[in-house]
Parts: sequence; structure tokens; C-alpha cells
Amino acid sequence: MATFKITLAYDGGNFVGWQRQAAGASVQGLIEDALRELDGHDVPVAGAGRTDAGVHALGQVASFVLARSIETEALVRALNVRLPADVRVLSAELAPVDFHARFGAKRKTYRYRICNADVINPFDRRYAWHLIGPLDVDAMAVAARCLEGRHDFSAFQAAGTAPRTPERLVTLSRIVTFEDGTTPIRDIRSTALGGALISYEIAGDGFLRHMVRAIVGSLVEIGRGRWPIDRMQDVLASHDRRRAGPTAPAEGLFLVAVEYGDL
Amino acid sequence: MATFKITLAYDGGNFVGWQRQAAGASVQGLIEDALRELDGHDVPVAGAGRTDAGVHALGQVASFVLARSIETEALVRALNVRLPADVRVLSAELAPVDFHARFGAKRKTYRYRICNADVINPFDRRYAWHLIGPLDVDAMAVAARCLEGRHDFSAFQAAGTAPRTPERLVTLSRIVTFEDGTTPIRDIRSTALGGALISYEIAGDGFLRHMVRAIVGSLVEIGRGRWPIDRMQDVLASHDRRRAGPTAPAEGLFLVAVEYGDL
Repeated sequence: MATFKITLAYDGGNFVGWQRQAAGASVQGLIEDALRELDGHDVPVAGAGRTDAGVHALGQVASFVLARSIETEALVRALNVRLPADVRVLSAELAPVDFHARFGAKRKTYRYRICNADVINPFDRRYAWHLIGPLDVDAMAVAARCLEGRHDFSAFQAAGTAPRTPERLVTLSRIVTFEDGTTPIRDIRSTALGGALISYEIAGDGFLRHMVRAIVGSLVEIGRGRWPIDRMQDVLASHDRRRAGPTAPAEGLFLVAVEYGDL
Repeated sequence: MATFKITLAYDGGNFVGWQRQAAGASVQGLIEDALRELDGHDVPVAGAGRTDAGVHALGQVASFVLARSIETEALVRALNVRLPADVRVLSAELAPVDFHARFGAKRKTYRYRICNADVINPFDRRYAWHLIGPLDVDAMAVAARCLEGRHDFSAFQAAGTAPRTPERLVTLSRIVTFEDGTTPIRDIRSTALGGALISYEIAGDGFLRHMVRAIVGSLVEIGRGRWPIDRMQDVLASHDRRRAGPTAPAEGLFLVAVEYGDL
């Protein structure tokens, strides 16, 4: 018996989300199926972030207990040969017996990508929210910063969900932009063509359901000049989901990293 | 009657290539179909580079003559609404009546992406050649440079093809590498996970069929230590396709840009 911690990346486009559902392919389901084949019995897998349908991951973390003993490198290979190419296990390590990817997570970082160009680069079409028309990125950046700190984020949670406590500590909430040309120098798909790539990064000790996407939807209202910058503060203080902006589409969202231990 | 020059990007994964074929979707075929609908009659389209099946484009250029008059911005929009999301017209401009995208091209730039990591980032799976195991990138860089200049590139052309002249001027042939981590800072899909992204750039006045991919296949033989560095020079001088390395897979290749006019 050993507890393992794995780090994985996936293209969320073809999945119903992290969590196993009655119908449709889920990342958790694929990993559990692969581990059952490997370990000879059911292996429940816990994921740090339960990403929704269409949401991507660069550094999701999952944990599980295996009956058989296996080297971590062999585990990575054995999982990857059983998984489709849009899910890749990047690394595996032995963890303390009581390690749990979700309950033990100290900080998660998400990134949301917006392509603000008349025409979206075809290589970004499944990995960004395409927004045409002017966006006041500076205003969005100021509004983003006011979410940093410990707050009740009820205004940004999915309608109908009620967590035990809606308070979360957000340690970083920033807008980063990348300039661009039609022939990006550094790499091919790192920038939008004919416009700016706007990236929003948020890190915190936990996130409510749809929280990042509702924040991004609200930032875009500000970017489009429909709301004044200080409305962000008002929405946050209202604790009322109806005051926030629309939920931004899933395809722009990436779970970037999950951290454990003392921070 | 007006001649137009358009610049376009496409994800080559779902196409039989640029050129219209008896069966399968081609980029040229899609654009010609869209223009026929727009102009009311057949519009032959010339492409600067006849990219093969699976090869991508960031800045392909095409030309055609329309009977009806149309503003260039309206032309971009009209084409994009008729094209699938994996082909995007980035810009359009009026060109001299005798402009021809292929015959007028002065320089083309291609990029080939190699992911040299144990596990490939799922976001790169359709856009790079995944090579596991050590690659001597410095040796590849030295070998790449020796192709710059005017040479007979017969050794790197597809077997069975015989162009009028196999001589081409290569103005740039370089290896560029990008370091990486599991959580790339700058952007999501710009680097491989757990390994280096190796990018090969080549520019010249023209390319023989499969030339870039045969060059990359040869560079990889050197990177893997199967060939000494100076074998590249020998292969080039041999004019013999059987001496070169295997043709690298299409999915790593991008037509980056096409230039016209005095250089």
C-alpha cells in the first residue's frame, strides 16, 4: 500500500470535466480506469481542482492509493500508455500515506486567456475567449487587483451552489498582456494574431464553483466600459451573484498549478 | 475586376493540404468555394506555399481576381464567416493586377517545432514532433547553419519529384531553443512541459517538395549522435535523397511568412 501524488496536464475540450459523470468522458474516470487495469481493483482518485467541462489543466494534481508497489517513473509510463493524448501525466511521486490532493492543497493558480483581436489565431480557437472590440485593459487591471485579500466571494459563485463557507483568500489577481504581430517571434501559439492576448492570473487558497469565470465576466464588463472600475468592489461587497457579470466561457480557463505544504 | 492579396493562418491537422484534391478538404478548395459564393462565379486562388497535408500556416499568402468590387475589410469578414474556424483570413489588400502569390514571392519562412521531453504537453500534441531521449542541440545548430547560401538542395527533395532547377537560396537556417518549466510563465502553450522546445527556422527564396522536413529529419540524426556534424555538408553535396535523413512528420511544420517586393 502506497499513496501517490501525480501532476497532470489536459486539454479539457473533449471532457465533461474532471469529475466522473454518469455519461461522457471525464479525466478522473480515465485515470481511475487506467489504475484499475494497473492495480487489479478499484482505485478512487482525488483531484485538487474539480475543473468543469471544457476547462484545461497545465498542473492539476491528483492522489490515490495503490495496493501493488511500482516505481514512480514506471507509473507515469503505465498511465500515459493507457490515457488518450489529450491527458498526460507529467510526474508522479510517493506521498505521505494521508496525503489528499484536494484537502491538502494550500494554493491553486488559475489563468484565463482572452484573445482581443478582430480575428482569432486558429491555434487559439479552443484555448481563449475571443472578444472583438476595444477593451480597456488598464481598467481591468485595476479592478482585478481589488479582489486580492480575504473576502466573501459569494457574488462570484455559480447560482444554486452553497458551500460551507464562501470566504476565500486570494493572494494574487492580476492582468498580464502580451503584444503581438502576425508572425510571433518567440513561439507560434503564444500570442493572438492581429491583436493582444490578455491573460488573467488568480491564485488563492480555494475557489468557489465558477468563481474565476464569473470574475472574468465581470472584468470584461469593466473592460468594455459598461461598468465603472469601482463596481468590482461593489459586486464583491454585495455577495449577490446577480450583481456580477456573466460566466466567461470554459475554453479560456486553465488550472495552472497546485501547491502544498507551508507557503 | 480587382486583384486581391490575402494573408491567412490555418491549423493543417484536418486538411489534405493547401492544394485542392480529388477527395478531402483542402484550404485552397475552401477559399475557392467561399469566393464562388461571394463573387458568383469560379475564382481560381493561387497560394504562395503549397503546404502538404497536416502542415500549418501562420502567414500563408494567396491571390485571386474578383469581378465584383468589395472593401478589403468586408472581404475578410465575408471569407471568415464562410470558412471553418481552423482557417482564418487575417488581412486582405488590393494588389497590382498582375500580382501572383506564388510567382511573386521573394522569400518564405518556415518553422519546425520539436518537443524534446519525456512527456509532451497535450497542447502541443498536434503542433510538434515529439522526440524522447537526448538531442545534441548545439550540434544541430552548427549543422543547420551550413545550409545557408545558394545550393543545389536535391538531397532534400521528395523522392520522385524533379523540379526545373533544384537550386535555392537559403538566407537563414537556425535552431532556437526555449527553456521551460511545468508552469510556463509567459504563456501556456509556448513551451513543452518537462523538457525543451526546439524550434528550427529556415528562410529562402523557394523550397523543394518536403525539403524542410527532410532537413529536419537529417538534423535530428545529428542531434541523436547517429551522424557526425559534417555529414550535413556531405549530404548536401551528394545531391542524393537516399543520403539524407527521414522526412520529419508534417504536424511540426509551419509556414510562418511570405515576403514580396525588394528585399
